[in-house]
Amino acid sequence: MSDSDNTTRQSERASPRPTTVAVVGCGVIGRSWVRVFTRAGCRVRLWDSSPASIERALAWHADESVRDTRANSNEEGLEEGFADAATSLPHALSDAQWVQESGPESLGAKQSLFASLDELAPPNAVVASSTSTLDMTEIARDLIGAHRCIVAHPVNPPHVVPAVEVLGGARTSADTVARAVDGLRSVGQVPVVLNRYVPGFLLNRMQMALVREAISLVERGVADVDAIDAVIRDGLGLRWALMGPFGVANTNADGGTREYLTRYSDSLRWLMNDLGETPAMDAALIERLGEQTDRMVDDMPRDRLRAWRDRMVQGITALKRADGGP
Amino acid sequence: MSDSDNTTRQSERASPRPTTVAVVGCGVIGRSWVRVFTRAGCRVRLWDSSPASIERALAWHADESVRDTRANSNEEGLEEGFADAATSLPHALSDAQWVQESGPESLGAKQSLFASLDELAPPNAVVASSTSTLDMTEIARDLIGAHRCIVAHPVNPPHVVPAVEVLGGARTSADTVARAVDGLRSVGQVPVVLNRYVPGFLLNRMQMALVREAISLVERGVADVDAIDAVIRDGLGLRWALMGPFGVANTNADGGTREYLTRYSDSLRWLMNDLGETPAMDAALIERLGEQTDRMVDDMPRDRLRAWRDRMVQGITALKRADGGP
Repeated sequence: MSDSDNTTRQSERASPRPTTVAVVGCGVIGRSWVRVFTRAGCRVRLWDSSPASIERALAWHADESVRDTRANSNEEGLEEGFADAATSLPHALSDAQWVQESGPESLGAKQSLFASLDELAPPNAVVASSTSTLDMTEIARDLIGAHRCIVAHPVNPPHVVPAVEVLGGARTSADTVARAVDGLRSVGQVPVVLNRYVPGFLLNRMQMALVREAISLVERGVADVDAIDAVIRDGLGLRWALMGPFGVANTNADGGTREYLTRYSDSLRWLMNDLGETPAMDAALIERLGEQTDRMVDDMPRDRLRAWRDRMVQGITALKRADGGP
Repeated sequence: MSDSDNTTRQSERASPRPTTVAVVGCGVIGRSWVRVFTRAGCRVRLWDSSPASIERALAWHADESVRDTRANSNEEGLEEGFADAATSLPHALSDAQWVQESGPESLGAKQSLFASLDELAPPNAVVASSTSTLDMTEIARDLIGAHRCIVAHPVNPPHVVPAVEVLGGARTSADTVARAVDGLRSVGQVPVVLNRYVPGFLLNRMQMALVREAISLVERGVADVDAIDAVIRDGLGLRWALMGPFGVANTNADGGTREYLTRYSDSLRWLMNDLGETPAMDAALIERLGEQTDRMVDDMPRDRLRAWRDRMVQGITALKRADGGP
């Protein structure tokens, strides 16, 4: 959609930013969504069938907010919102303009949860699921409010990584897609719209294409885990933090993507056809990958690795924003 | 190789850093190699069959060195080396400890150039090729000095992106591989060793796996070019600038890569088998990809995009170094 469409649409309605949000399901993804919304000034109510999960999420959120404010990542100068525990699911939903569901990843569980969400949420609320695998057509199959149900699949963790895959089901309205896009953009995320459901959406399909080849290269003894990771983290990944595959193709030839793909189409197709098959993933191969990964990360505690990853991703996105672009 | 191996080997010889380097072939890759070496204090002689190419490369290098020194990227405090034009190929090679060849990408041309390089370079020089596609077994087939010939394939441009794929031919000695690794590391690059030749090496195989799926998703109408690129540049690419696929798998489960691959092996294999086939790459598809890319980059001049990419990659690598890691 072009910027002018956007401007028109936004001016026709109230601000796209939801003032009241319900986060339903408070695990690692849910709690990170809480921070996305409070950072943008929203009032967020948390709900989870486990009260202990709500408490843990609020404790994490309090720590994270302090860190975040120090790091000055709320650079638009928005007033901080706030988060608290709902006393019940109906309480969480009572006046929500946006519902973000991050519950267990099973169709039955999502269907039953969405039945409640659709019954209890105000008629104008967008009801979004963080599912990474399920089709909203199935989740919302029996719902009266299927038109306002949508997938908003984040990259983990969403308060650090901005991209969110947005995807309606068969009965989701175009208006809901537009409101989801505007709403996510208004809280600082980068919505990415899919035209239709495919397993793995865009992100996990492209990730799995690369992972398949990476595993195949180790399986065939071409290189070890550390070599393969180094080519990404000190090579390709540095460019991919800035441009996707088509942006890279565009800079690879003076005539851009068209010239690049035309000039090299034979050798590109030849190399694509030479790529490895899906590896067996048997116990011996998994042990080899595990053992080589252990050697690479050298006993570094995973929590420290994740904290470093999050700090650095925030640093890179800040660097990109500060530069102002090409 | 472990650090202790490294230390032992380095202490047994003189410094791994070449003091004198010949850069043969002075296009975009060659000139960037010149900067890699002068930044590390090397004396570099340039040679190209086109005198105009040498002049252009030296002019670019002078500009780049000023920018680089301002940006303080030579943070090890090494004294700047210098670059000048050789008067002939023998002059370029006369006392070189490292030869970096970046000539035309054809087997015949490389074989004939390597015959001269091997004849003229001092016996102890490492003779490295920037080839992205050819096998050193073939390039050095008829050479007396095949043992010291090796592939050192950079990511474009090497003075910005550190990873370099290192790969001997059938007759390349283990000592040459070790010297190439130490030499590249000593000038600030990140050498990545392959155990054997495969078309596309590691980097272009993994890139092509992702590109194939990206093109297939557009071909099938799942999403457009800008959506696919956004998922990478504002999503996966931010993590891949820090960790490769196995480092990501390691942080995806509390038990690391082993647990992640074991727990999800069925669904991972299922998704791998669902990935798209090699697209037709016919004129209509290329036109669609080209047109959508044009819309995405919105007439931004490619030189500005490349300058931004290089500036940002340097910023990201500086950020990674400054942080000190996990």
